[in-house]
Amino acid sequence: MTINLKEDERIDDLMRNGFKLIQNTGIFCFGMDAVLLCAFSHINEKDRVLDMCTGNGIIPILLRARYGYGDYTGIEIQDINVDMAKRSVLLNDIEDCVKIIRGDVKEAGTLFGGTCFDVVTVNPPYMKENHKLKSPNDCKAIARHEIMCTLEDVVSQASKVLKHNGRLYMVHRPARLVEIFESMRRNHIEPKRMKMVHPHADSEANMVLIEGVKGGKAMLKTEAPIVVYDKNGGYTEELLKLYNK
Amino acid sequence: MTINLKEDERIDDLMRNGFKLIQNTGIFCFGMDAVLLCAFSHINEKDRVLDMCTGNGIIPILLRARYGYGDYTGIEIQDINVDMAKRSVLLNDIEDCVKIIRGDVKEAGTLFGGTCFDVVTVNPPYMKENHKLKSPNDCKAIARHEIMCTLEDVVSQASKVLKHNGRLYMVHRPARLVEIFESMRRNHIEPKRMKMVHPHADSEANMVLIEGVKGGKAMLKTEAPIVVYDKNGGYTEELLKLYNK
Repeated sequence: MTINLKEDERIDDLMRNGFKLIQNTGIFCFGMDAVLLCAFSHINEKDRVLDMCTGNGIIPILLRARYGYGDYTGIEIQDINVDMAKRSVLLNDIEDCVKIIRGDVKEAGTLFGGTCFDVVTVNPPYMKENHKLKSPNDCKAIARHEIMCTLEDVVSQASKVLKHNGRLYMVHRPARLVEIFESMRRNHIEPKRMKMVHPHADSEANMVLIEGVKGGKAMLKTEAPIVVYDKNGGYTEELLKLYNK
Repeated sequence: MTINLKEDERIDDLMRNGFKLIQNTGIFCFGMDAVLLCAFSHINEKDRVLDMCTGNGIIPILLRARYGYGDYTGIEIQDINVDMAKRSVLLNDIEDCVKIIRGDVKEAGTLFGGTCFDVVTVNPPYMKENHKLKSPNDCKAIARHEIMCTLEDVVSQASKVLKHNGRLYMVHRPARLVEIFESMRRNHIEPKRMKMVHPHADSEANMVLIEGVKGGKAMLKTEAPIVVYDKNGGYTEELLKLYNK
């Protein structure tokens, strides 16, 4: 299939079963957080999965590439990303199992009409500070800062669309862990599994992966952390394994 | 000074400036959690420090041994431990800077009459499940299970005795992290620093060290984790450093 690329766009090979992704180098290219979130998430064969703040669709496309099963929906508010994600779906010929919807995460509960998903994945904007939008097209700012949706919006809406015992997989900044736990509990999603990501074995964590279960019992597992770089500055074996998982 | 030892008691060398500790092998000997909590805690020269659930007094005695300064009070509910801790204080000739008080942690706020401590340290009972006390002298059960005080008791009383900006240092089980954060926030102590302890580099955490600041702003640092054993089953260099810190 021929897909037209727009200015600043390129096609990246996801290095997995031939899957590809269109990215716009001027906006926001996917990073390690998306890849590690996919490696951290467990998807079962019949799961319906919603990816909130899907951006260029990296998470549903990568999950589908990895698992070869599952029914995925990505919701995204920015037209430029929706358009790009939709073309990536076409490019990979997976329209039957990956749907991209233009919509506001804050309205997910209404949009999907109740508890219909087994899994929600989300790589939300990390930054809390008030950020003045320079223009409605300030895509990078929207992806990084809580301009269009807050942590509480994401978690409360996830709770609305998740079935009982459904799982929420989130990647975020460890600096906001207390707030994340609070928001999850307030919305009846119990944090059950957590994994820290440290750039080096002796450095602070700069990412945290969390699995919450809707209606789950209180009991958190803290898995072995991921260390990204070894002493020589190369990627650790562990990280490379996760990339190839 | 001659100190009389009772049945099942022994004197352990703390391997630090000649400091010693009386322990009762039939009750509860201090473990790695107490040592790591001391290594994790920062004590300033003029700090007044309260150690809750002090047991045989290991934490105030070890902190005093390490820092050579600071004014410490240990509060403990079990007579057998109070007696042992007091004799350890005498043995080390530090009665002027380490006081052991028999008392109920649940009444700490009243007992000390308000916000008079710069630091609270605590290695509380970890286990939540209801445990039937077989006898009032079931010392091990009291040290391990929330029979005489709960997590919420400890945190709420810590908040009552801490000055504004005072620090709470706690060691606990990671399984209860969500509840710990909730309890701290409810009591105006903000979790600011956290360090996981993993037995091996690839195993789940089995201990967590937390620093909370009374009235602190929301922003948590997750420090590099401690790994206890190396691949050959020996202690890691990192752990040995903390033991000698």
